[in-house]
Amino acid sequence: MTTAPDPELLELRESIDNFDAALIHLLAERFKCTKRVGELKAVKGLPAADPAREQRQIARLRALAVESKLDPDFAEKFLNFIVREVIRHHEEIKTASAAKP
Amino acid sequence: MTTAPDPELLELRESIDNFDAALIHLLAERFKCTKRVGELKAVKGLPAADPAREQRQIARLRALAVESKLDPDFAEKFLNFIVREVIRHHEEIKTASAAKP
Repeated sequence: MTTAPDPELLELRESIDNFDAALIHLLAERFKCTKRVGELKAVKGLPAADPAREQRQIARLRALAVESKLDPDFAEKFLNFIVREVIRHHEEIKTASAAKP
Repeated sequence: MTTAPDPELLELRESIDNFDAALIHLLAERFKCTKRVGELKAVKGLPAADPAREQRQIARLRALAVESKLDPDFAEKFLNFIVREVIRHHEEIKTASAAKP
């Protein structure tokens, strides 16, 4: 049992798929930067998390969200989601670097 | 007590901030599309979630992640994170639309 998909729904989904591809590629580039940050922090013995920097990022992203009519709470949740992943990567880099002879 | 920030770290953070602004603006556009999808679904009485579509999206985003050297598990977690928010929006639209006289 299948129903013919709505043409407007199909068109919207094509746009969503394009946005998702763009988001994935931007995230890949962002993680390249944070990987390099993690390496720098490991070499210089800096802590993986930086609460002051994160507070500035949250305030900035909330303002950008308001400007682009995105829910600022969602923007903050999004940043936290990314930062959790970044910290996980940084801890891995630190462990790998500490394990080196 | 402050230490002079590392110039490479500062440069990387500028790039991260640029990527974040781009991500927020793309997400804002993506939510415009899913808002319209939610309205269509509410009008046509379609369910908020669509597991078959989500399976195709996950497979596609995992492939795009591999291509762009992003962790495919992270890409899947990212999509789930976005979809959870979208479903929340859709349920709200449905409730608002059902409450209309």
